[in-house]
Amino acid sequence: MVTNIPCIVLVEPQLAENIGMAARAMKNCGIKELRLVNPREDCLSEKALSASSNSEDILHNAKVYASTKEAIADLQYVLATTARHRDQTKMVYNADAGAMEISEKLRSGVKCGFMFGPERTGLRNEDVSLADAIINIPLNPEHCSLNLSQAVLLVGYEFFKAFNKPFLSEFVTNHTAIASKEKVMLFCTHIENKLSDFANYKDENKKEKLLINLRNIFTRSQMTEQELNTLYGIINYLDEK
Amino acid sequence: MVTNIPCIVLVEPQLAENIGMAARAMKNCGIKELRLVNPREDCLSEKALSASSNSEDILHNAKVYASTKEAIADLQYVLATTARHRDQTKMVYNADAGAMEISEKLRSGVKCGFMFGPERTGLRNEDVSLADAIINIPLNPEHCSLNLSQAVLLVGYEFFKAFNKPFLSEFVTNHTAIASKEKVMLFCTHIENKLSDFANYKDENKKEKLLINLRNIFTRSQMTEQELNTLYGIINYLDEK
Repeated sequence: MVTNIPCIVLVEPQLAENIGMAARAMKNCGIKELRLVNPREDCLSEKALSASSNSEDILHNAKVYASTKEAIADLQYVLATTARHRDQTKMVYNADAGAMEISEKLRSGVKCGFMFGPERTGLRNEDVSLADAIINIPLNPEHCSLNLSQAVLLVGYEFFKAFNKPFLSEFVTNHTAIASKEKVMLFCTHIENKLSDFANYKDENKKEKLLINLRNIFTRSQMTEQELNTLYGIINYLDEK
Repeated sequence: MVTNIPCIVLVEPQLAENIGMAARAMKNCGIKELRLVNPREDCLSEKALSASSNSEDILHNAKVYASTKEAIADLQYVLATTARHRDQTKMVYNADAGAMEISEKLRSGVKCGFMFGPERTGLRNEDVSLADAIINIPLNPEHCSLNLSQAVLLVGYEFFKAFNKPFLSEFVTNHTAIASKEKVMLFCTHIENKLSDFANYKDENKKEKLLINLRNIFTRSQMTEQELNTLYGIINYLDEK
């Protein structure tokens, strides 16, 4: 039995009305938990509450975070919604396939989230690199710009459909859990701390790309806690040698 | 090769902003033709144009009709979008199945449309009876109310996905075309004109239900022009006997 539902993470949403409409779209799709990273406007403002149309409870229960990392720290699988092509080595799912992927993960007890960027710019590359994979909404390539709440609606709708279908397969991790985002990020920081004399790390122009690549490698592989411990052992061994 | 695209028919939309946002959603999904039945507000008002967000061309080309019958007269296959359960004997498709159905019809050259009702009430039963089948958007049953433009977006999105997939089957009508809605409605009126002494027709309380049933029978069967002619022959023969 699945009691697990994904959360929606809105990174730096600009308009209160869009937060409200996103909450309404979430409720349409049976999703309850809303996380906001540095919203520019108050998610409990009159505008937000009125746009939410009977989904005020989602806004009242929404949690606000200071950074994307904090907002997804306890999650184990995160899909980043993007429209533009991203130069990152990550799995890209169509909305329906991504929704099936999330539904299967939820079924195995994995905590999941869908992440959306700000209205004008979409997610920053740095935020995309924190996600396990990318979810892309198939639309007319000549006119694919969507309002934030419409993107939440389409992704949520695919989730609702996928989640309410019976599944035939299940993801098995055998006695160990998928590591939370917090643990994966601590591990990335652990490596980063060992790099102070590494040429590409000292070069400010190359450092950012290096860190994004590093995160992509370790978010893409859906590491379990056991595997993380193994890697810690290896890194520490190499470092002390 | 398919050059055929369905149209969107909005029956008595109330707000100009919703018409504009519906046009934007249509463009997202590669749909161009908008038909409006008695819109309460002007589809070329500032509100509508600004909400359309670079889809003004759809609003400028939109056609306005005085009745639903006129708006769908030249179409050969129409799906009515409804949220509530309707007491009508019609095929009900989930949005994805309905979109596949429309895509197959388009491929055979059939002129198709998706019909949506007014914001508050949805389509009237009389309008639903003019459609070939019903399309239903699967959403959280406890909170399935959608903004009009969101309903257009979800149906259009399913259409876009279905239409851009390769198909393996095709609907073949062999030397005759599916009759247009106008011809089917003329046929229904032809029968109606023969009923002046029929008890259920003379009883005002029963007349409306009778006419809806009649339309449902003949819209449900996707009659070809040849079949219509056959029925005309039979009705006229019985009448003159």
